Amino acid sequence: MKNKIKVAVLGCGHIGSYAVQGIKLTEDMHLAGIIDRECEIEKVKSRFPGIEVVDNVTRLSEKPDVVLLACPTRVVMQEAPKLLKLGISTVDCFDMHGESFVQLKATLDPLAKENHAVSIMGAGVDPGASSMIRALFEIWAPTGLTYVNFGPGMSMGHTVALKSFAGVQDALAITRPGRPGCHQRDVYIETEPGVDFNQLTEQIMQDPYFSHDDVHFFQVDKVAPLVDMGHRIRVSRKGGACGIDNQLLEFDSQFHNPASTAQVLISTVRAAMSLEPGAHIMLEIPLIYFLPYSAEEALKRLV
Amino acid sequence: MKNKIKVAVLGCGHIGSYAVQGIKLTEDMHLAGIIDRECEIEKVKSRFPGIEVVDNVTRLSEKPDVVLLACPTRVVMQEAPKLLKLGISTVDCFDMHGESFVQLKATLDPLAKENHAVSIMGAGVDPGASSMIRALFEIWAPTGLTYVNFGPGMSMGHTVALKSFAGVQDALAITRPGRPGCHQRDVYIETEPGVDFNQLTEQIMQDPYFSHDDVHFFQVDKVAPLVDMGHRIRVSRKGGACGIDNQLLEFDSQFHNPASTAQVLISTVRAAMSLEPGAHIMLEIPLIYFLPYSAEEALKRLV
Repeated sequence: MKNKIKVAVLGCGHIGSYAVQGIKLTEDMHLAGIIDRECEIEKVKSRFPGIEVVDNVTRLSEKPDVVLLACPTRVVMQEAPKLLKLGISTVDCFDMHGESFVQLKATLDPLAKENHAVSIMGAGVDPGASSMIRALFEIWAPTGLTYVNFGPGMSMGHTVALKSFAGVQDALAITRPGRPGCHQRDVYIETEPGVDFNQLTEQIMQDPYFSHDDVHFFQVDKVAPLVDMGHRIRVSRKGGACGIDNQLLEFDSQFHNPASTAQVLISTVRAAMSLEPGAHIMLEIPLIYFLPYSAEEALKRLV
Repeated sequence: MKNKIKVAVLGCGHIGSYAVQGIKLTEDMHLAGIIDRECEIEKVKSRFPGIEVVDNVTRLSEKPDVVLLACPTRVVMQEAPKLLKLGISTVDCFDMHGESFVQLKATLDPLAKENHAVSIMGAGVDPGASSMIRALFEIWAPTGLTYVNFGPGMSMGHTVALKSFAGVQDALAITRPGRPGCHQRDVYIETEPGVDFNQLTEQIMQDPYFSHDDVHFFQVDKVAPLVDMGHRIRVSRKGGACGIDNQLLEFDSQFHNPASTAQVLISTVRAAMSLEPGAHIMLEIPLIYFLPYSAEEALKRLV
């Protein structure tokens, strides 16, 4: 256990459960415990025998170096500041794009610096690994256009958000590709008895997490048989290098979404140990910091 | 011109010529001139009217911040140390893999540090951008196997190396994919009159740059009509994330090789301006340093 990175996992939904499994498989890390804020500690303990489960990080028998935030986007904004104030680094998979990201960074960066901690934001598959692919494609071909297509696949964030609406018994949000770079969101809902489906969908469409999307609603008797956690991301860039057009760069991925997201988070925990205090996104971190070997080893393996 | 990065290009073969064109298209850079060590200055001047052409970097009317080394791999080992000693940063596309890379880094790193300069090595398409893809795939799926397939396409390095053999009038080396991760090298040679083709090929196969490869030789009357500078790289990883196998990650690229290599070098020049003194490979550099915009802008564009 000497020199191993002590990691606690906050949240034990899909991503958190795979993160627990992944940390146990990761030689340079030690699982310091699970933090379950919803106080269902006995239930969680029975799912993860032999692992310390607490409702607050301060109750763990050893202080973790890093907390892996496997919680919905909105919870990151509440929990990350508290952890940073305790001098504990955080890695999250915050998945709102654009402006809200800039705001989160502005909040977390000074807190991390004051408390000599590191916060890495948006370290999932998308945003995260696929943002790095897009950056690399722009480095390679600075002029031109990039198209990103997602799915068909389950949006974990949108599915969690749907379940928080009153009247929703169970739900499933699918992202599926339309024309290049365009998407539809298919939402399958199992309502509670007596719920007005039209009223419910109108309410959902007022939420900014859905209001920008092309959403198609389906009322179903049972959501469970429809669930599959595979997903797909394709990134296509057709662009110019040194004024020469038609450089064709393609990334395609078919993956188990929570397992892959948890794995990117785990690799990012490693990066948190090498960075200066502050809040960072993946694009600000050298790739070698995410890997369990040195630059010299990387030269032999990857170059 | 204020605040623009002053870049000189050493070498004006294929990559150098596209680098000159690319730097002129790059808003945050200024082309400080071309260094042609082979003293064909008048010939080079006529190809690049209005651009200062010299045989030694010290003769440029303004000292460049960075020299982009668009020269064969073996010349990098001679020229990079001289430039670093003058306090000028270097970016090269050194393309020997593995151990020789580690040696070059060990040579350049102390020189760069002593002279407050930065040296970025192996900043081409492969090694370089494709090494970054492979690293990212290991970060995403740490267990499993990666297969890399090249071509069919012209190997610039091997073609230059072939032309240096006595008896070779013109030559073309093609890399083409075999079974996953395996390659053949097809070598087309136009010999000088009276040359023994078998003797020549035996001599080439003794060169360590060729001796590890599955090389097929073809004697042709004319090489020129066979030349096309497009290339292809495919990187496929099938691996596990958090113990869940069958994460399928694919990268495919079809590109103009010298133009793309030159462009990656140009983007890397930008990174050289942000790093601490020393020798670095692309894996040691945050992606944001290669891009012409800030992390905040990247959050809006790429995340």
